Amino acid sequence: MVLYLIGLGLSSAKDVTLKGLEAVKKCDSVYLEDYTSKLNCTVSELEKQYGKKIILADREMVEKKADEILDKAKDAKVAFLVVGDVFSATTHADVYMRAKEKNIEIRIIHNTSILTAVGIVGLELYKYGKTTSMPFFEKGFEPETPYDVIKMNQKNGLHTLVLLDIKKDLNRLMTVNQAIEQLLLIDDRKKEGVFTPDLKIVGCARLGSDDFLIKYGTAKELNEIDFGEPLHCLVVPGKLHFVEEAMLGLWK
Amino acid sequence: MVLYLIGLGLSSAKDVTLKGLEAVKKCDSVYLEDYTSKLNCTVSELEKQYGKKIILADREMVEKKADEILDKAKDAKVAFLVVGDVFSATTHADVYMRAKEKNIEIRIIHNTSILTAVGIVGLELYKYGKTTSMPFFEKGFEPETPYDVIKMNQKNGLHTLVLLDIKKDLNRLMTVNQAIEQLLLIDDRKKEGVFTPDLKIVGCARLGSDDFLIKYGTAKELNEIDFGEPLHCLVVPGKLHFVEEAMLGLWK
Repeated sequence: MVLYLIGLGLSSAKDVTLKGLEAVKKCDSVYLEDYTSKLNCTVSELEKQYGKKIILADREMVEKKADEILDKAKDAKVAFLVVGDVFSATTHADVYMRAKEKNIEIRIIHNTSILTAVGIVGLELYKYGKTTSMPFFEKGFEPETPYDVIKMNQKNGLHTLVLLDIKKDLNRLMTVNQAIEQLLLIDDRKKEGVFTPDLKIVGCARLGSDDFLIKYGTAKELNEIDFGEPLHCLVVPGKLHFVEEAMLGLWK
Repeated sequence: MVLYLIGLGLSSAKDVTLKGLEAVKKCDSVYLEDYTSKLNCTVSELEKQYGKKIILADREMVEKKADEILDKAKDAKVAFLVVGDVFSATTHADVYMRAKEKNIEIRIIHNTSILTAVGIVGLELYKYGKTTSMPFFEKGFEPETPYDVIKMNQKNGLHTLVLLDIKKDLNRLMTVNQAIEQLLLIDDRKKEGVFTPDLKIVGCARLGSDDFLIKYGTAKELNEIDFGEPLHCLVVPGKLHFVEEAMLGLWK
């Protein structure tokens, strides 16, 4: 019948929209995709709010068993809940296409995402370049992509949002400090001066929630700060307008 | 006491979050900033939903008379409603800073924005470069910035979101067709082959609402299509991944 793709926003159960809430309440089955991001509330809080049992959809289920979800949606109303906005991950485009192929009606209910919640930092959203993400380094896997993206954006005077790795299955969520250390490591290796201890950057934690924390300072300074609970992210400012400069002053 | 900055999302009154709704209901005064974007519902629908009188804040009020709003927030609960997400326009950073200066408590309630709602097109949000906006050309004012931004993003293989001008006071909202014509005009003048009649682009209307329209084709083809009611925007794809290519195929 219908597949609802519903964004849940970034933090509490109450970040869902009225439209989203009404849709979930009508549904026969409710799935939650929570491996690409993470809310600050429990699944049981969500279940209580919706008055529905929630089925957790891990990466394997979404990527390999999407047909199970879609087949249900042929004859019933199914909600697929996504943390942040609906199309924050490629996977969801894939779900959308497969539903289209099966002639299932799809309704999309948007919500906020870290890509715009980061606006609170005070850097104009229009002036961000490509977004990048920093994975946990492992032996033989130390990708320099985030460094190269920062370099490209810097060259064009643009800001860079660096999203940090989430390994939910291992309960590992990258901190601002870990990201800084990995970027300094790459700079040490490449010696291009893109990300040095003196570079002024913005460290963020829990954007989208009431107890967010933002700090502006050099990489070296921010590396001394404990940003507390996840999720964290990093912003590397490009060329600053005076209003942007004034906003950053609030987080010194 | 408190200034709530609340995002309303993009389309209907029900796009507000539960958290946003609860906040507005507690407020003594409610302002709506609606000159940088536009909802698909009326102010009286909003007033009915909230059970509150809404004061329209036009550009002059927000930019010059923000003190009136802020002074109220010193002793009362004031809501400042913004279409889209809260920090979509620089003006709102300014309101935030002025409130901070006056030691007013500020709460931010995020929502979706065109910057992430455009994810439905199927191009990965991480792979968009700088965003640009296309103003209505006037005699002696035909800026080439949008063209140059597209060129820069193309060079880096990135997608470009082109937002289209909103002149609310004149009731003029730019269409996909007008934007295409202006871009072709610039290309005609600069002859850099960045935006030609054969360039494959994406035209969008009413993203975030249930009756959105997306079309993928050459600039020439899309220029023949009537996209209907506002708001419109344009996406110029960069280098395509095969999943992105498949998603674009849905809108041919």
